[in-house]
Amino acid sequence: MSARQVTSLTNPTVKAVRALHMRKEREESGLFLAEGLKLVGEAVDQGRTPRILLYGPEAAGMPVLRRVAEATEKAGGDVVEVNREILEKVSRRDNPQTVIAVFPQLFHDLMALKPKAARCWVALQAVRDPGNLGTIVRTADAAGCGGVILVGDCCDPYSVEAVRATMGSIFAVPLYKATVAEFLAWRAHWPGSVVGTLLTATIDHRQARYEDPTLILMGNEQAGLPPELAAACDVNVKIPMRGRADSLNLSVATGIMIYAATP
Amino acid sequence: MSARQVTSLTNPTVKAVRALHMRKEREESGLFLAEGLKLVGEAVDQGRTPRILLYGPEAAGMPVLRRVAEATEKAGGDVVEVNREILEKVSRRDNPQTVIAVFPQLFHDLMALKPKAARCWVALQAVRDPGNLGTIVRTADAAGCGGVILVGDCCDPYSVEAVRATMGSIFAVPLYKATVAEFLAWRAHWPGSVVGTLLTATIDHRQARYEDPTLILMGNEQAGLPPELAAACDVNVKIPMRGRADSLNLSVATGIMIYAATP
Repeated sequence: MSARQVTSLTNPTVKAVRALHMRKEREESGLFLAEGLKLVGEAVDQGRTPRILLYGPEAAGMPVLRRVAEATEKAGGDVVEVNREILEKVSRRDNPQTVIAVFPQLFHDLMALKPKAARCWVALQAVRDPGNLGTIVRTADAAGCGGVILVGDCCDPYSVEAVRATMGSIFAVPLYKATVAEFLAWRAHWPGSVVGTLLTATIDHRQARYEDPTLILMGNEQAGLPPELAAACDVNVKIPMRGRADSLNLSVATGIMIYAATP
Repeated sequence: MSARQVTSLTNPTVKAVRALHMRKEREESGLFLAEGLKLVGEAVDQGRTPRILLYGPEAAGMPVLRRVAEATEKAGGDVVEVNREILEKVSRRDNPQTVIAVFPQLFHDLMALKPKAARCWVALQAVRDPGNLGTIVRTADAAGCGGVILVGDCCDPYSVEAVRATMGSIFAVPLYKATVAEFLAWRAHWPGSVVGTLLTATIDHRQARYEDPTLILMGNEQAGLPPELAAACDVNVKIPMRGRADSLNLSVATGIMIYAATP
């Protein structure tokens, strides 16, 4: 491993990596940040290779780092040893991970989605909170869902906050994007149940029949599902509210729905 | 309403309110911050009265504010009109709520808990993330749980981040605190099922029999339930993991467990 060393915050590579905190930069470059040696090692195991690999002195001797660095170099990526200050600035954390890597974003083509490849899929309309989105990707992974479809104007699944909340599942769960119109046209050919979750529905989420593959459709944090999407579902269900709170956190509600659909 | 006006960040009341971002100050004063006119209004409806009520010019004409301010003054509290800059500093947000209030914290006595007052209760051991804790309080409220018991060294449910995540449920859900030893002694008299959630358990969370009142016991984000607490449960269950991710976010897992116990 013959990595170059960088100690300056004005180094162009360091500046380019830091810029990935901005959505505009992520969209233009098609890249994102992932943090942590374990997570980056798992990504490489799944055939995903960093474009840029930054590591601090504490990671230098680790066997996993050697493997990840070799894979990065072999694919023409950039391996750079940096100091702790750079890791802090890049991660915007006082206690940064020892490895930060830049990967190409990956969105799959909705038209190529194979519904029967999994029992359950998740579609999110206009989700706004990156922590919720990341947590839902993690849950989708844990439950063996086929993927997550982002419908309409969602927050960025490749933001640093969303990626952190996925706890590594960002590399395991296929992501899809669609406008509401694209989603509605595509949904017409869904072979199983499309289930919308709606506070005003009358059917309990556990009473509905879920025909595999189930596609669970969740509205956004503030407004829930808009009428045109609710109407496009085979059934609308509600998770019962029995206290003062009149709604659940979106990632909690989605988790309850996923496990209700895949008992 | 004859509130005094404060425009200085060095005003002692403003300084005291800002200090409540620090755990030490919250513990010494027994107070906490709650934000938002709607939320503060609901708290007053439930008989909880602010010690200090800060409001910005935008809230000044609202009927709910008048009601809240009257209740505060009647109970001997302090009503203060402030400017936007103070609201930003107190909330640490660029886009602050127009009302910020200081309330006394409330912890109930575990020995006075009436298990049969609800079908389901939640106990959390050493929960670390305030967002998770707040979200769990919100879920407990939505599901009609009796309360949340904090076992061992937990994060503070009255931190600003936790209170925000409860979305107002901080006023609706009774909170209890116990050491591990206190919890174990008290648990011996629980009349229903005590169910621990454990990644290494072999019983599916939906196969277990939950005898009301069910007490759901969750371990912390990193380590899960310690053996002594797992052993104190009537049954340990697991939520099935079917993908690459080997765990769920704690608030998602708790939500799934609560709704599994109260179908």
